[in-house]
Amino acid sequence: MTDTASLTLDQVFDFAVRVMTANGLSEPHARANAAVMRDCQRDECQSHGLYRLIMCVRTLRAGMVVTDATPEVFDHAPGVVRVDAKRGFSLLALDAGLPLLVEKARASGIAALAIQNCFHFSALWPEVERLAEHGLVGLAMNPSHAWVAPAGGTTPILGTNPFAFAWPRKDGPPFAFDFATSAMARGDIELHRREGKPLPPGTGIDARGNPTTDPLAVLDGAMLPFGGHKGSALSLMIELLAGPLIGDLTSLESMQYDEGAEAAPLHGQLLIAIDPARFTGGDSASHLARAEALLDATAGQGARLPGQRRHEARARTLAAGHVSIPRKLYEDLLALIPEAKR
Amino acid sequence: MTDTASLTLDQVFDFAVRVMTANGLSEPHARANAAVMRDCQRDECQSHGLYRLIMCVRTLRAGMVVTDATPEVFDHAPGVVRVDAKRGFSLLALDAGLPLLVEKARASGIAALAIQNCFHFSALWPEVERLAEHGLVGLAMNPSHAWVAPAGGTTPILGTNPFAFAWPRKDGPPFAFDFATSAMARGDIELHRREGKPLPPGTGIDARGNPTTDPLAVLDGAMLPFGGHKGSALSLMIELLAGPLIGDLTSLESMQYDEGAEAAPLHGQLLIAIDPARFTGGDSASHLARAEALLDATAGQGARLPGQRRHEARARTLAAGHVSIPRKLYEDLLALIPEAKR
Repeated sequence: MTDTASLTLDQVFDFAVRVMTANGLSEPHARANAAVMRDCQRDECQSHGLYRLIMCVRTLRAGMVVTDATPEVFDHAPGVVRVDAKRGFSLLALDAGLPLLVEKARASGIAALAIQNCFHFSALWPEVERLAEHGLVGLAMNPSHAWVAPAGGTTPILGTNPFAFAWPRKDGPPFAFDFATSAMARGDIELHRREGKPLPPGTGIDARGNPTTDPLAVLDGAMLPFGGHKGSALSLMIELLAGPLIGDLTSLESMQYDEGAEAAPLHGQLLIAIDPARFTGGDSASHLARAEALLDATAGQGARLPGQRRHEARARTLAAGHVSIPRKLYEDLLALIPEAKR
Repeated sequence: MTDTASLTLDQVFDFAVRVMTANGLSEPHARANAAVMRDCQRDECQSHGLYRLIMCVRTLRAGMVVTDATPEVFDHAPGVVRVDAKRGFSLLALDAGLPLLVEKARASGIAALAIQNCFHFSALWPEVERLAEHGLVGLAMNPSHAWVAPAGGTTPILGTNPFAFAWPRKDGPPFAFDFATSAMARGDIELHRREGKPLPPGTGIDARGNPTTDPLAVLDGAMLPFGGHKGSALSLMIELLAGPLIGDLTSLESMQYDEGAEAAPLHGQLLIAIDPARFTGGDSASHLARAEALLDATAGQGARLPGQRRHEARARTLAAGHVSIPRKLYEDLLALIPEAKR
């Protein structure tokens, strides 16, 4: 027996659907979630691939997510789509709202999609890449749980608040990135704890507000934003835009709602779509070509173009026709399926 | 003779208008620029107060800016206003486009203003604060000159690319911030050079790509983005959004256009305005109240709320009825007025 399991992308999808439906999630939600896990696994974005099933099942078993919620789409304003996820997972709500968002962005030049009352646990880049595949520029953001202290403070009131951006490219996949506005993703701190590795300085503080490199002390204390007061300001902006602006919870309010269950956070999500053709009309192709020169000048000097590693992994996976995951992880995930359903 | 000069805000405005018109700028442009310099001086944002006249006059004397350009407004799409600044300064173009941007944001929920072919040299926060004073959320960004190397690279291809955000507050001035996506503002590096002070590590690299704390070596080499690869990704996003998206120059192209004149960069600017009332309707007041709780939780734990220092300075200035600037600066600025016009 090898220590890795080899699965085709279809098998990744089917397996993920099976684990989630066996834990009570409706088929439409399971398929929406599994599609993103499959894409993340394809791009070797391990933390949001099949590994995410652990978090997903924990959330399902905590009983807070509505497992068969039917998202409701509201054509809210000429530039605003609102989708009430009805306390279900966010991705089916995104599927429901995306066509109207694309239509509005093409009609107006810029439009927003507010997903409300959702449990979000995926990476953001697959969501903005979908906008770029329609030829649109995409931005996305959401709060999470209050784990991060603002720059200069010691009390965690901000989420890890991810931000994502995608830009359409004529040849090849979109230029897309996402990042947590915390210095490190929460999952990575947990990985450091499990492996007994110290954190890089600046990642967080202990419960008394002192700098520490001990992962457990940071998990009990507070994480810090990336980039000092600038990253902290961005994180606050994300709280406001994907929280009170759209009528949803801040990370602090989401944490209170959770009551210690450690389930995925309940909150909103904001996506913004922009149509280059509505800014520069028939000239947009030549302007997009100038963007290529900038992206090439970045990658050409040996700087990593954000998303570049993912796209290289994607090419490798598509050529190989399968992905490999640690055998131990595969067995842990299989064990998430109740015995009677295995 | 004291070593500071005391001026009322009206005197700041009039003096700035006088320096600019004496150097050939049309009255409408001079008044638009002077209004922002006055507001920056009021908030003790020294680098963008009267001090900015030095840069402004250098740009005027370089002969590249069109001193009497009349901005032209285009109602480009339901969610897009475009203003051609016709190679004039940006602020008169902003004045021209702002009413239609506000109208579109209120009608659609979200709208964009693209200012094209402009010379921008002000701080961004006064511009987004104007949107917040209309009850709107504001974002703004622009490229500059290619002074910054992307994370992991050594060749400067990115601008210092400022980003700004403003959020309306019921009582008191808006929550607003702006920051350069470079680790340090270019003007601050120049100040370090003038004062013979070393830079903090991580500010820049020399012409051979090695880390250095020597300001002159960084000015000859490359500045670095704030926050490593995350800040670098944001800077790239700003290049794309306020450059090719709206049909304007990237920082690299602007640098080439400048041909070493060291004038203000020629480029575009993107503003986005969002109307909370179009997202949450009649409930927006209660949601904005929740935002207050978040902002209070930030300031309440001793963390500096972005913009807080400016607002404290504003209150001080308004109470005192005047601002103080170094006598030497005042005399240097007076000397910018040709003798015959003094």
